[in-house]
Amino acid sequence: MAQHKVIFDTDPGVDDAMALLFLDQHPDIDLVGITSVFGNASIDTTTRNALFLKQLWAIDAPVARGAGRAVHPDRVEGPPPTFVHGDNGLGNVAGVPDSVDIAPDPRPAAQFIIDLVRANPGEISIVAVGRMTNLALALALAPDIVGLVKQVVIMGGAFDVPGNLSPAAEANIIGDPEAADSVMTADWKVVAIGLDVTHKTVMTRAEMAEVARIGGPKAQFLSDVSQFYIDFYQHIIADGMFVHDSCAAVYVVAPELFTLRRGAIRVSCEGIAVGQTIQKPDGMFFPPGPWDGMPSQSVCVEIDAPAVMSLIKKTLSGQ
Amino acid sequence: MAQHKVIFDTDPGVDDAMALLFLDQHPDIDLVGITSVFGNASIDTTTRNALFLKQLWAIDAPVARGAGRAVHPDRVEGPPPTFVHGDNGLGNVAGVPDSVDIAPDPRPAAQFIIDLVRANPGEISIVAVGRMTNLALALALAPDIVGLVKQVVIMGGAFDVPGNLSPAAEANIIGDPEAADSVMTADWKVVAIGLDVTHKTVMTRAEMAEVARIGGPKAQFLSDVSQFYIDFYQHIIADGMFVHDSCAAVYVVAPELFTLRRGAIRVSCEGIAVGQTIQKPDGMFFPPGPWDGMPSQSVCVEIDAPAVMSLIKKTLSGQ
Ligand SMILES: [Ca+2]
Ligand SMILES: [Ca+2]
Repeated sequence: MAQHKVIFDTDPGVDDAMALLFLDQHPDIDLVGITSVFGNASIDTTTRNALFLKQLWAIDAPVARGAGRAVHPDRVEGPPPTFVHGDNGLGNVAGVPDSVDIAPDPRPAAQFIIDLVRANPGEISIVAVGRMTNLALALALAPDIVGLVKQVVIMGGAFDVPGNLSPAAEANIIGDPEAADSVMTADWKVVAIGLDVTHKTVMTRAEMAEVARIGGPKAQFLSDVSQFYIDFYQHIIADGMFVHDSCAAVYVVAPELFTLRRGAIRVSCEGIAVGQTIQKPDGMFFPPGPWDGMPSQSVCVEIDAPAVMSLIKKTLSGQ
Repeated sequence: MAQHKVIFDTDPGVDDAMALLFLDQHPDIDLVGITSVFGNASIDTTTRNALFLKQLWAIDAPVARGAGRAVHPDRVEGPPPTFVHGDNGLGNVAGVPDSVDIAPDPRPAAQFIIDLVRANPGEISIVAVGRMTNLALALALAPDIVGLVKQVVIMGGAFDVPGNLSPAAEANIIGDPEAADSVMTADWKVVAIGLDVTHKTVMTRAEMAEVARIGGPKAQFLSDVSQFYIDFYQHIIADGMFVHDSCAAVYVVAPELFTLRRGAIRVSCEGIAVGQTIQKPDGMFFPPGPWDGMPSQSVCVEIDAPAVMSLIKKTLSGQ
């Protein structure tokens, strides 16, 4: 029985593809929409990839095309990280067509999110694993959605650990810091799952091969997509890949595997700390400042990594 | 035999007073100068307190008056934290005169530091436990001193933990962030001992009373000075005070009690993260950024707190 309605906001992206397959295959998740956003590749590429994976994996959920740039006009996006996710955003795997013969939903992602949330009040978990741009635009267009969304689970941020695009900042946040600050400070429930814990979730080459062997063609394609990404990570991990985005998907069905810390979250938008996520833990007192009056959100500070990885492998394998 | 020549740059301040007594009483330290700086109180008050403690405790080292405001003209200092250190900067203890009948060294602190360092090439450890303003001015006036100072041991910063004046920033750094950035990025040896470890060093009321009982009048006065500060800390510590500044003094004689992490350090000077100390750990790789080409410095990430406290109590007791 599907218990959790999910909108997946994503920039596929290799670890995005894994999270998408997890969401589609987990029996307790009803994936009601997929929204694309720029990040791991251009918006053209991430939207194409979302449509392609929908088609390849026979996913029911519609795909809506999202933002192609950050909300603040001064933020100029550099070239996409093709050295991480490949030129095609899917690890340079063969067989990804230039265009897909199914059309996206006619609405922009922000409007698509607003409509689905309003149609399912209190029921939708938004799993956001790219820049927060679509969510910030939805909040700006329809502030009422804060009272209608069940929760926003993001993969993003680096709270008590160094970032990955700078010593201060993680990629999804620094890619649109103003948008992330909007999402963190909105009066809805945010759970931020950042590098503090996703750097503890590694899928090894052997585990990926086993998933592919048991899981059939869908899992085999995911494995094919992931090889380039695993090669990229060799400078940090001897064997395997961080599953980053899948952690946010797992949280929806197994929140008991995550330890949360409560407190207002702001995002630094200036100077050397641009893109840094900074939480004021509840119960700590400071002179008046930018965290005052902001809603208390949840930051994931510990994870049961073996259990999370086990659930991911089981679900991807179709078991 | 005195092995370590020390200049103590300080804003007394209650925990500053404790560190001063430690430096004066430790047999392996030759305290060659004391420089005052604004912070825990105005520069008039911290200079008066340094002179008063020199007189009361019969300390040989001369006192030079330092900076009364931050290096950047836009930084406007708020009122001093009288609720932490008292109106007189020494816990509102009785017996502190309005003025002291010994004169400071005629030179400003920055010049005093430069002269002492040049006269003792390679020999001087600067223990800096207030705003970094005097050191930044000395660096600006005499860049050659970077090659002549043995080491700069600072109490300041919050690297992997929340700050104390904001979720991002510790007081000594946010009080003059541009100065701190100058000090961290200068090509001399910096050891930064911040809240990551000083929040593990607590002296209880009973321990302070025992120090006073054994240590005689000097330690008794320190105990009297500390009561107001201990009362302030009751919202964080059930019983006692953080010894913050003394940790930097201890490092000079017992570096083996501290675990260091190497990497370039920058200080955020803008936005919500103003005053935050951010290290790029050596061996981690990022896109080009503000840490590139900066010297690798040391951040204290672990401390043998029982051993540090034991050494402090022993030294303050005159044992
Ligand atoms: Ca992603
Ligand atoms: Ca101090």
